[in-house]
Amino acid sequence: MTTAKRDTYTPETLLTVAVRIFNDRGYDGTSMEHLSQAAGISKSSIYHHVSGKEELLRRAVSRALDSLFAVLDETGAQRGRAVERVEYVIRRTVEVLMAELPYVTLLLRVRGNTKTERWALERRREFDQRVADLLKAAAAEGDLRGDVDSRLATRLLFGMVNSLVEWYRPHPGGGHDVQLADTVVRLAFDGLRTDGTAGHV
Amino acid sequence: MTTAKRDTYTPETLLTVAVRIFNDRGYDGTSMEHLSQAAGISKSSIYHHVSGKEELLRRAVSRALDSLFAVLDETGAQRGRAVERVEYVIRRTVEVLMAELPYVTLLLRVRGNTKTERWALERRREFDQRVADLLKAAAAEGDLRGDVDSRLATRLLFGMVNSLVEWYRPHPGGGHDVQLADTVVRLAFDGLRTDGTAGHV
Repeated sequence: MTTAKRDTYTPETLLTVAVRIFNDRGYDGTSMEHLSQAAGISKSSIYHHVSGKEELLRRAVSRALDSLFAVLDETGAQRGRAVERVEYVIRRTVEVLMAELPYVTLLLRVRGNTKTERWALERRREFDQRVADLLKAAAAEGDLRGDVDSRLATRLLFGMVNSLVEWYRPHPGGGHDVQLADTVVRLAFDGLRTDGTAGHV
Repeated sequence: MTTAKRDTYTPETLLTVAVRIFNDRGYDGTSMEHLSQAAGISKSSIYHHVSGKEELLRRAVSRALDSLFAVLDETGAQRGRAVERVEYVIRRTVEVLMAELPYVTLLLRVRGNTKTERWALERRREFDQRVADLLKAAAAEGDLRGDVDSRLATRLLFGMVNSLVEWYRPHPGGGHDVQLADTVVRLAFDGLRTDGTAGHV
């Protein structure tokens, strides 16, 4: 017997369903009908919680963006040499990505067709710029190489970090996850080569 | 006055149009009607050149894959220490990505819904495995760090390299492009830090 599910959703639990469908079908390819089917409640029940799919997108990418920007306000991102602060930010960014995987995945796939998407892209650029500024400061302090443009370095760094959404799947227990954040930081700052990296292993 | 374009296409020139549309709309989202409109010729004219959109996809991803696999057969990838061979392969991979940008972009977006897509994913995995084997050999020879799993290193490395399709756009003249391949190799092997990298700058 199939019956419509009783609507026990809150905006937060409805978001979990919406983000899964957005990631599966793409935001553009998702209709309210798809969301209604996936949640097992009627479209009017969904409208009881949120104004529409754009509100769900805004809430979802806000969750990812808020977590990322919060990292920049943590003590580790505020104190010490710039190189230590940027290492801290990269490590914590990887951790946020792992902890908020579906939300960050959605954020990284946003393309800019709606007002909310353009706002999300703008916020992402702001975050990248903050990291680029840290890299520049660390190069000025002599800790990072000065021969690589900080914008380009940021792009390549986030290329590596963000690629995790393509293949990373959480481990029960999360033991390997700490190691993964370590590995990303180690490769980004010390590279693959053995020369001169002994001090950082 | 708008008239249907006279069909002066070859399978190769038709491919250029198809790849652009596949990258814009996604392969799944592209119909023969979209291809016909973009090319300005009738669907039956397209069927005169190719059996359908899957053949166009196969030709397009083959072009990217053939260029990538050809790198592995070049002298630089065959001779010398493993670390030199893997550096060579990464540099040339970046160059192929820049030279064949729309084709590699399409390859990297393939998801595996059709036989051709699954075949392309399988070939990509094969390429990644060849690079992972080189990284492993270089670690065994003591030139690359042995404390990072070669499969994970390969994923992170290609995360960085492949992210170029998101933002790289060719320069007329191509002067900066050589520098870009250099920068990717430098960051991947020596990292962002200044320590111990003087010999490689």
